[in-house]
Amino acid sequence: MNKRYIIRIKCADRIGLVYIITRQLFEHRLNIVELKEFVDVEQNVFFARAEVMGIADIAALRLGLQNHLPENADVEVSEVKKKNLVLLVTKEYHCLGDLLLRHYHQELKADIKAVIGNYESLADLTSKFGIPFHFVDHQAREKADFESEILQKVALYEPDYLVLAKFMRILSPGFVEAYKTRIVNIHHSFLPAFIGAHPYKQAYERGVKLIGATAHFVNNNLDEGPIIAQKIIPVDHEYTVRGMVEAGHEIEKSVLFTALKLILDERVFVHGNKTVIFD
Amino acid sequence: MNKRYIIRIKCADRIGLVYIITRQLFEHRLNIVELKEFVDVEQNVFFARAEVMGIADIAALRLGLQNHLPENADVEVSEVKKKNLVLLVTKEYHCLGDLLLRHYHQELKADIKAVIGNYESLADLTSKFGIPFHFVDHQAREKADFESEILQKVALYEPDYLVLAKFMRILSPGFVEAYKTRIVNIHHSFLPAFIGAHPYKQAYERGVKLIGATAHFVNNNLDEGPIIAQKIIPVDHEYTVRGMVEAGHEIEKSVLFTALKLILDERVFVHGNKTVIFD
Amino acid sequence: MNKRYIIRIKCADRIGLVYIITRQLFEHRLNIVELKEFVDVEQNVFFARAEVMGIADIAALRLGLQNHLPENADVEVSEVKKKNLVLLVTKEYHCLGDLLLRHYHQELKADIKAVIGNYESLADLTSKFGIPFHFVDHQAREKADFESEILQKVALYEPDYLVLAKFMRILSPGFVEAYKTRIVNIHHSFLPAFIGAHPYKQAYERGVKLIGATAHFVNNNLDEGPIIAQKIIPVDHEYTVRGMVEAGHEIEKSVLFTALKLILDERVFVHGNKTVIFD
Amino acid sequence: MNKRYIIRIKCADRIGLVYIITRQLFEHRLNIVELKEFVDVEQNVFFARAEVMGIADIAALRLGLQNHLPENADVEVSEVKKKNLVLLVTKEYHCLGDLLLRHYHQELKADIKAVIGNYESLADLTSKFGIPFHFVDHQAREKADFESEILQKVALYEPDYLVLAKFMRILSPGFVEAYKTRIVNIHHSFLPAFIGAHPYKQAYERGVKLIGATAHFVNNNLDEGPIIAQKIIPVDHEYTVRGMVEAGHEIEKSVLFTALKLILDERVFVHGNKTVIFD
Repeated sequence: MNKRYIIRIKCADRIGLVYIITRQLFEHRLNIVELKEFVDVEQNVFFARAEVMGIADIAALRLGLQNHLPENADVEVSEVKKKNLVLLVTKEYHCLGDLLLRHYHQELKADIKAVIGNYESLADLTSKFGIPFHFVDHQAREKADFESEILQKVALYEPDYLVLAKFMRILSPGFVEAYKTRIVNIHHSFLPAFIGAHPYKQAYERGVKLIGATAHFVNNNLDEGPIIAQKIIPVDHEYTVRGMVEAGHEIEKSVLFTALKLILDERVFVHGNKTVIFD
Repeated sequence: MNKRYIIRIKCADRIGLVYIITRQLFEHRLNIVELKEFVDVEQNVFFARAEVMGIADIAALRLGLQNHLPENADVEVSEVKKKNLVLLVTKEYHCLGDLLLRHYHQELKADIKAVIGNYESLADLTSKFGIPFHFVDHQAREKADFESEILQKVALYEPDYLVLAKFMRILSPGFVEAYKTRIVNIHHSFLPAFIGAHPYKQAYERGVKLIGATAHFVNNNLDEGPIIAQKIIPVDHEYTVRGMVEAGHEIEKSVLFTALKLILDERVFVHGNKTVIFD
Repeated sequence: MNKRYIIRIKCADRIGLVYIITRQLFEHRLNIVELKEFVDVEQNVFFARAEVMGIADIAALRLGLQNHLPENADVEVSEVKKKNLVLLVTKEYHCLGDLLLRHYHQELKADIKAVIGNYESLADLTSKFGIPFHFVDHQAREKADFESEILQKVALYEPDYLVLAKFMRILSPGFVEAYKTRIVNIHHSFLPAFIGAHPYKQAYERGVKLIGATAHFVNNNLDEGPIIAQKIIPVDHEYTVRGMVEAGHEIEKSVLFTALKLILDERVFVHGNKTVIFD
Repeated sequence: MNKRYIIRIKCADRIGLVYIITRQLFEHRLNIVELKEFVDVEQNVFFARAEVMGIADIAALRLGLQNHLPENADVEVSEVKKKNLVLLVTKEYHCLGDLLLRHYHQELKADIKAVIGNYESLADLTSKFGIPFHFVDHQAREKADFESEILQKVALYEPDYLVLAKFMRILSPGFVEAYKTRIVNIHHSFLPAFIGAHPYKQAYERGVKLIGATAHFVNNNLDEGPIIAQKIIPVDHEYTVRGMVEAGHEIEKSVLFTALKLILDERVFVHGNKTVIFD
């Protein structure tokens, strides 16, 4: 019976790479469902993602690719499978609710293993869907202590990705390092505009005619990690800050889901501080 | 010195096609700049477009591909080159003006060889840019006669494509047949809504909240040819028909240019009554 | 203590109408929070909506307006208050889930009194949020019988509006008449394109480059009632029908919520087969 | 015979302002074509714009309004008329070409009196449309000298507005002061992101998934004046800087025209560092 595999390759560019890859796939009798590639000409880096069907000897295929591709090529071969997620939240329900609903209806190619909140506000909503909720208070304690408790809880679930679904605490470098390029955040502005706190207030005061949302991987510079997806909606002088917040919720949850879907399908490559996305 | 070529393939799908193609490219020492493929799984049809650099023996490459690809494969191999266009217009200047400006500034990968109008309204604008304008009157004569005169004028320029840049006469089947999948039209609605005359008036009367424009190849059913590009803009109850017409101009010229750019880069495959576009 | 009122007026247009209205508001010491008006010049109809604050003698204000406005003017004056909704659903969860979540978090200016489904699929989801769910089977019975049972259930809740949140049965004229301009439907196409069943399949077969969703009031011609809101998203040849359905869910729920929000704020006037919306 | 007038009012907010205004209009027997108002509640400022028809005694109407509105109210009453524009350009043709085409076809409610360029590149294009072109070299001279020559040329035409249609020199405070809130610039980013030089290069390096354009009034802080209009388009990793520049041209010219249209219709109020726009 046929299975489905994803092959991801990142290596120095040179002539004949697609030929090498497709020859291996052909020799393993794998049928290509989708194949996309990209060359960053400036930096001479080649990226490819293939989705294939058949019965693969994964180790042999990986070895075959590794042997023929340029030295030090990153080669990933894996069967398509569901990922595990842990969500971190603060008080706003819209991103969490959207993900819980999709998860409950099997629309997410992932299992939400747990939700961790620095307030108890979202415990009820989470429990409606039978997902464990952990309250980890950030008040009246050291940040290191707070983060250490989160890390302990997270570790219980061995997630592939942490999703900051409107989690309003800034994570320290040590935390970020522990889940490098595996933490996805939704920021409520079209980055790089309005970095940091209260982006809608900043947007209101600047008098912009559009507001946005950005999903990105978290790195050690606030709101400066690789961008995965962005959307905007128009606003005008009639919008108060509160009106912008409400309107923004719609694109925040949409952008976060869009980014997650791409990540769960293994379509996103991190490339320096940017992303290459085969959608 | 390196040249740039485009290879376009359409054939029955089977395992190993990308391997076959990239092996040929590799054996001809051609470097892939861009490679995109698509399989219509329902109809088992494979499409691919490659843009490559190097020095190609075009005939040998085409033969090599033809020999290894499934029987009856459509294989096109050609050096990248400018196309020739003839534009047909009626009275509205916005699409024509946009194309003339781009052409004058070498932004169009094509030469506009001539403009043919069924009114004289746009002769002045055309002549500012040094392009021949032919007035072919449709009044007080048979349609066959009118079209025959246009075809004569067109034939002088041996165009690759005819562009109906707001040409408001319906072409007869014979005319369309003569330039099959080589006539591009811009229709001022989001097809299939509002086929035929006065789409903005129809849109106004229906009370839609968005209006659109569609660029498509012309076939023998009015406004029913393969769609290449579509855009919309929001409208509301404050729009009169006239206001919709004016607002619509903006997307009409934008959609027509978008479609033309794709066609001139040979990115568009006609597939039944649909298009496959590698952008 | 100040209260908030909405005044809605529709009448024959003539000079001085805004003056008449604002004089009345001034004489009742009401502060205008928002005032919008529109004249359909072709049909000589004037529309206005005012949102005001203060303490109003509603009956006196209505009488004052009625006395000075043209004969037969429609004048509505009411305190701002929550509306009651009954939702009708079939099997798809996305619109229902979105509304239940918003309702649970007090984001909807309405109470969802009940959900009625012609399948049991969505009973579980509904009950998570403590809302009554009624299963009314459409199978193996007369349509009149089926609708009569729905009407009985609906009547229990005296809703201001019925929301067809992906309800896949066509309502008969008698049903529609009973809730005239009070039934809101979400149709999964950019109407008037792809009326009727399976619009995504129609869209796929036509090869459109954008798909849409339309929220509209229901009248007795299928999918031809007054349009309230529309949105679209781009698609391409890689989309299967299933892919379009999934992508479309995002705009369906967004458009339905947008339309409901406008209706609940009493911003929508029905005008023939169109809407005038003061947003 | 009826004429058309625009009335613009900005004053401290208090109850009854619309009543006062509409009473005056009624007493002068002016028919309201359009009336829009807005209150900045935080700052207690009222804005209104009315477009009316009839025969007005402008001085009397202005006096009547001034007498009844709060002290120090800004009251403008004027007959609708074409404005005069002078355009400043550098080398890029797309915004200039778009405006010249629209002007030639009477689509702009303004006369383009002259074009001033700091290169000669666009002289030919300008002269095709019979508009004077002045070349003012910025090289090998003091900035003060350069600007002084521009100001001299501009003064010849007494323009209502200066339009920086991709003019790539930064104007000094003295120049800006001379045409306060009368200089419109198009900046090739979604401000406040990517202020200053080479915004597309900045966008490319940041790896954003959308690029934008912003039309704004010029003040003395680079790219920080009141925003009039903004648009964005999606991009992805396949875009080079050059690709972004080309794609950006489309929204730059569209945003600049949108902003100009609003200004020429006197729909834009400057309010601190923001705009209130009645569209």
